Amino acid sequence: VRTLKLTVAYDGTAYCGWQRQINGTSVQQRLEEALTPLTGEPPTVNGAGRTDAGVHAAAQVASVRVDIDHACDTIRRAVNVHLPADIRVLHVEDAPATFHARFNAIGKTYRYRMVTADVVHPFDRWFVWHVPGRFDVSAMRNALPGLVGTHDFAAFQAARTTITDTVRTIRRAELSTTEDGLTLDVEGDGFLRHQVRTMMGTLVDVGAGRRGAASLSDLLRTRDRSQAGDTAPARGLTLVRVHY
Amino acid sequence: VRTLKLTVAYDGTAYCGWQRQINGTSVQQRLEEALTPLTGEPPTVNGAGRTDAGVHAAAQVASVRVDIDHACDTIRRAVNVHLPADIRVLHVEDAPATFHARFNAIGKTYRYRMVTADVVHPFDRWFVWHVPGRFDVSAMRNALPGLVGTHDFAAFQAARTTITDTVRTIRRAELSTTEDGLTLDVEGDGFLRHQVRTMMGTLVDVGAGRRGAASLSDLLRTRDRSQAGDTAPARGLTLVRVHY
Repeated sequence: VRTLKLTVAYDGTAYCGWQRQINGTSVQQRLEEALTPLTGEPPTVNGAGRTDAGVHAAAQVASVRVDIDHACDTIRRAVNVHLPADIRVLHVEDAPATFHARFNAIGKTYRYRMVTADVVHPFDRWFVWHVPGRFDVSAMRNALPGLVGTHDFAAFQAARTTITDTVRTIRRAELSTTEDGLTLDVEGDGFLRHQVRTMMGTLVDVGAGRRGAASLSDLLRTRDRSQAGDTAPARGLTLVRVHY
Repeated sequence: VRTLKLTVAYDGTAYCGWQRQINGTSVQQRLEEALTPLTGEPPTVNGAGRTDAGVHAAAQVASVRVDIDHACDTIRRAVNVHLPADIRVLHVEDAPATFHARFNAIGKTYRYRMVTADVVHPFDRWFVWHVPGRFDVSAMRNALPGLVGTHDFAAFQAARTTITDTVRTIRRAELSTTEDGLTLDVEGDGFLRHQVRTMMGTLVDVGAGRRGAASLSDLLRTRDRSQAGDTAPARGLTLVRVHY
């Protein structure tokens, strides 16, 4: 029995998210199905991040235990043959028997893309949030240090979740301007459900002048989801990297 | 009556091409339909380039004569409201009464994107041709000067066309390497149907060593479509610019 580490990219548009669900097709399910011709029995593929419905990945990492002898590149090619074109295995490598994509991850980087121009280029339409208008980028940047560091992010967590440990560490948060909008890159040890999307929605409030740049520390202190901004749409979010 | 110049981007995947057809939906038809709420009667929109089924545009240009008073930006916004997200009007401006997008164009630039890596990133899957393998990029570049200039491109024309004037001028042809493949940029005074795609298919033969870099001048001389390479798939081609 070998443990494999898979690096996977996907366009999440058509999926109910990474994780298997009773209703809808998940990326995990598609990967397990694509491995089955090799493994005989459907294996369990564990992903580092449970991306939500519509969220994309440039480099999700998954681990799987298999009892096959093929070379890693052969496995990659065989799996890609059985995957739809919106999911691709970029890389396969052997990992220590104890490797688990989720439990061993020490951090993740997400990217959120926002188009502020009047028009979204048709090529980008599944990968961005369209918020036409002028935003105060300096104010948005000034708000970021209030979120970096170790904080209780309960105010940024999806409503109706049962997670009780809501303390997370954000190591880096950067806002860059692009030709037609803004891109937020956030690296942290882990993220609550909807955390990055709620950060983006709250930063947009700051950029639009509806909320002060210095107010985010107060917001964190409330631990009250209703005090934060809207949850930005899934389509703008991409899991860019998993750190080990 | 005003003459408007529209700059239009589209993901051509879902369309039978730019031009109205009896079967299938065209980009032209969608634009004419989206203008109708403003104009009352459906107008005729003339495009600079008749892109084929599945071919994309970053900046197609179209002209239309309308009898409305709205500001150009208002027209752009109103039309985009009625267009699907895979077609966007980027820009609207007033043009001289005699302006016709096709007849006044003095040139066009097309881009062809090819992925030579093992895997196509899911985000790019509608916009590239996947030809995994190693290609001799120097040989491909050496072949380009044989195509630049004024030539009879009959050998590069779609089979079963009735066009008799097959002389065209290519002003520029550049092949660049990208992270996962090659990009061909071609600027010319005009192009025959499938010309850029057949150029790409023929260059791939050169890059794979199936054809010599110096052989393209001989190929042009044959005027025989069966002597050229395959027609590369539509999805890799984008109309990038129309010159006036």
